[in-house]
Amino acid sequence: MPTHSPRSWSSRARRFRPQPDLAVSALVTSVRSPRVTAARRLHKRALRERERAFLAEGPQAVREALASTNEVRELFVGRTYAARDASLVELARAHGITVHDVGDEVVAAISQTVTPQGLVAVCEMVDVTLSAATAIPLSLVVVLSNVRDPGNAGTILRTADAAGADAVVFTTESVDPYNAKCVRGTAGSLWHVPVVVGADLAEASTALRTAGMQVLAADGEAPDDLDALLDADALRAPTAWVFGNEAWGLTSEQRAVCDRTVRIPIHGKAESLNLAAAAAVCLYASARAQRAR
Amino acid sequence: MPTHSPRSWSSRARRFRPQPDLAVSALVTSVRSPRVTAARRLHKRALRERERAFLAEGPQAVREALASTNEVRELFVGRTYAARDASLVELARAHGITVHDVGDEVVAAISQTVTPQGLVAVCEMVDVTLSAATAIPLSLVVVLSNVRDPGNAGTILRTADAAGADAVVFTTESVDPYNAKCVRGTAGSLWHVPVVVGADLAEASTALRTAGMQVLAADGEAPDDLDALLDADALRAPTAWVFGNEAWGLTSEQRAVCDRTVRIPIHGKAESLNLAAAAAVCLYASARAQRAR
Repeated sequence: MPTHSPRSWSSRARRFRPQPDLAVSALVTSVRSPRVTAARRLHKRALRERERAFLAEGPQAVREALASTNEVRELFVGRTYAARDASLVELARAHGITVHDVGDEVVAAISQTVTPQGLVAVCEMVDVTLSAATAIPLSLVVVLSNVRDPGNAGTILRTADAAGADAVVFTTESVDPYNAKCVRGTAGSLWHVPVVVGADLAEASTALRTAGMQVLAADGEAPDDLDALLDADALRAPTAWVFGNEAWGLTSEQRAVCDRTVRIPIHGKAESLNLAAAAAVCLYASARAQRAR
Repeated sequence: MPTHSPRSWSSRARRFRPQPDLAVSALVTSVRSPRVTAARRLHKRALRERERAFLAEGPQAVREALASTNEVRELFVGRTYAARDASLVELARAHGITVHDVGDEVVAAISQTVTPQGLVAVCEMVDVTLSAATAIPLSLVVVLSNVRDPGNAGTILRTADAAGADAVVFTTESVDPYNAKCVRGTAGSLWHVPVVVGADLAEASTALRTAGMQVLAADGEAPDDLDALLDADALRAPTAWVFGNEAWGLTSEQRAVCDRTVRIPIHGKAESLNLAAAAAVCLYASARAQRAR
């Protein structure tokens, strides 16, 4: 790796001089510039947590981030994207956000997708505490316990938003919702629904029950199925749905802190449903039951 | 790449001598052996279609393939997997299937997953014609029109199986169901539900209507939502669900060959649902409506 190319030298030499915000933009010409290095550090969970920041890639995520009340710290825009669509850049500048106009290779270096979409925002984390999330009247909540696949977690958060959920709780053992794949999977819903990170399942269950909810655990081995609950009108009550690990589901200790386990009926020969598909069925069953006259 | 290593020389020298089936196994010692090369060709759709064969990876898929009436042509088993579990290998041998005991690196070379699971089967394709699929009494059918993501398609096929669907139809523009990611996403359901490949949407719609089904297209812009159809008891009838492309949905021409479009209600701020989540909601709504007393 050339360490003395004019580009990196120039960015390294200048970085120690304090610069007003607008001038910062001019410094980001190289993939080795300090702002880019700082953004790339956010690929790692521990460094995201230290900075309380994460990366949002692509126009959809950036639009949702800009529309939310949570701070967008800076925006990197590649030349090709900027030439095609200036609207988000203008919106960001109108919000007073530092925009770095950079080469496509700089955005690609920050990006974690195979086909970078040309813009990446450094965003303030959005999660709230369990007590804040449970302080409002709750009808529908999702708890992800040991959910490890970021794509599944992101899709479930998006489905929870669509089904009108009031909060999504990630337990300590679950994937980080700020993981790039998860952020992408949420398709913007990360900014729509209050998210709790690093909760303990037993504590979350207690808090949700105290808030007047029944805590139902989706479990392929449960004696009662979803149709039985619907027939008994048991989904009309405020409900928190707990979904477990993709491979092994919920442990007996995890099931024990829930009020009831529920299985989705399998009418064909499939052994089980994909977790995100199962969550969609449960959440929409609740949404419909709660809205029925 | 060494072209004259003893291993590859030995397999090349022997491959022209005809061998009885059991002896074939001894030939597969190198990633460059003819059987391995032939199996790796199945990574490409055109070559899969020429051979009418595809690859099934991992114990779950191999178990389902062996349990089905469709032929398994040969099975590659890595040493580490074979040492851990012999049951599937024994089952395959009992069925008279040629089993190649190979090094882990050979299975890895045939595998298309990041973490190969140690066994790969070469399987006969399972798809049936549209007329065969529609010749039986039908209650629930899924049509994938322009669905391009193999993970989505595989998950929908798995959900269709779980919901008790009678067939899944892939139109010409959809992803190949024998794509490795799709096969993996089906979690075995590829061998459970009759699958039609390369159908024309208009022809499929006509055939399904002739078979007594209503053809409903899932469409975010539709005037009626799923709850309205459930309230009107309109999902009790035999139903074919058409799902369109992940990004742009269905074109007006595609919608025109369906009886009706239906939208899933969005109660929160999400713009839309992930396609596989939407399919899960629609298919389970139909499954419940059709089974209601």
